[in-house]
Amino acid sequence: MTNECGTSRIAGCQFTLYPMSDKFVDIILSALDKVDTSKVWKDTDDVSTCIRGKMVHIFDVTQAIFLHAAKTGEHVAMSGTFSIGCPGDSSGDVFMDENDQPQNKAGIQDIKQQAGCKFALYPMGHEDYMKKIMDQIDLSKSRGVEVSESHYATRLDGDVKDIFNTLQESFDQVQQVVSHVTMTFTISANSPSNK
Amino acid sequence: MTNECGTSRIAGCQFTLYPMSDKFVDIILSALDKVDTSKVWKDTDDVSTCIRGKMVHIFDVTQAIFLHAAKTGEHVAMSGTFSIGCPGDSSGDVFMDENDQPQNKAGIQDIKQQAGCKFALYPMGHEDYMKKIMDQIDLSKSRGVEVSESHYATRLDGDVKDIFNTLQESFDQVQQVVSHVTMTFTISANSPSNK
Ligand SMILES: [Ca+2]
Repeated sequence: MTNECGTSRIAGCQFTLYPMSDKFVDIILSALDKVDTSKVWKDTDDVSTCIRGKMVHIFDVTQAIFLHAAKTGEHVAMSGTFSIGCPGDSSGDVFMDENDQPQNKAGIQDIKQQAGCKFALYPMGHEDYMKKIMDQIDLSKSRGVEVSESHYATRLDGDVKDIFNTLQESFDQVQQVVSHVTMTFTISANSPSNK
Repeated sequence: MTNECGTSRIAGCQFTLYPMSDKFVDIILSALDKVDTSKVWKDTDDVSTCIRGKMVHIFDVTQAIFLHAAKTGEHVAMSGTFSIGCPGDSSGDVFMDENDQPQNKAGIQDIKQQAGCKFALYPMGHEDYMKKIMDQIDLSKSRGVEVSESHYATRLDGDVKDIFNTLQESFDQVQQVVSHVTMTFTISANSPSNK
């Protein structure tokens, strides 16, 4: 069995920010302008953005981009996939030398923003243990977040920072016992359906 | 080992349509109005829509919703996860009695629409065989679609119908040999980055 995985625990996220507004270009560029991405590898094209680096910075950057876009008051959503482990995780390792200080914590601390989020965790290559692993994740400890189950996904409702904390903690717990983990998520704020 | 899977091969898709426009509500409602969803189970909330049924109808409905939204000329995207096999696939089986005739083929046949798409296939519980399985998918036979590799995903560029054909064929090939398969995708049309 060949193993092309890198030796580091570099994490990544492939995501897209969706402002449902004629001003979508401005909202995206303005959000990116306010977010410090210096501690992650980053590549953007017209379909999605990929960032790679330490887990703490992957969640810090995605959360900050979403919050800076959502605080415009427009209906915005973000959808993507977090990933750790192989395949394809052997480049960009230089960013693993960054320290653990989140660059965007200060910039978002005053933003209060409600949102709804659906996510699904996939521990790869371990389907037999999937239920056991998922049972270890105690979402009842996710303060400030309302948890509900839907088809193929778990729904979280609450403040964006509490939602991202829950996403990161769930992802972190699973990646400690499973080499390759992916986690899909869609988070939505300021939907007119909620007004 | 408990097995809570259903016995049918019911497929599903959890997705969201994103029109980057002030008219997003109208575009979504108008697209849904033009699409026949009678052969799938459907549930929608403010974050995403879940449809379940025969694979042919899951792809028919998602493709038709995307095309009817994209033909407005606005920048629209769709992001989601196709899924087949357990867990959670035991309800909605009544829709497996529908015939295989796609309801929306006639309604979209005259729509020509270019798009870019990134997708990733995850054969669950079979990581050792993942490369072998993926190698069986010969994307060079995907006529009309340009294939390229990016981090965590494969990129397809071409006509929307050719892209959805490639998505469905890839998903179908893997689900024939692996019980539980998920496939994430993001498809984007009319992006100003391409003009
Ligand atoms: Ca997704």
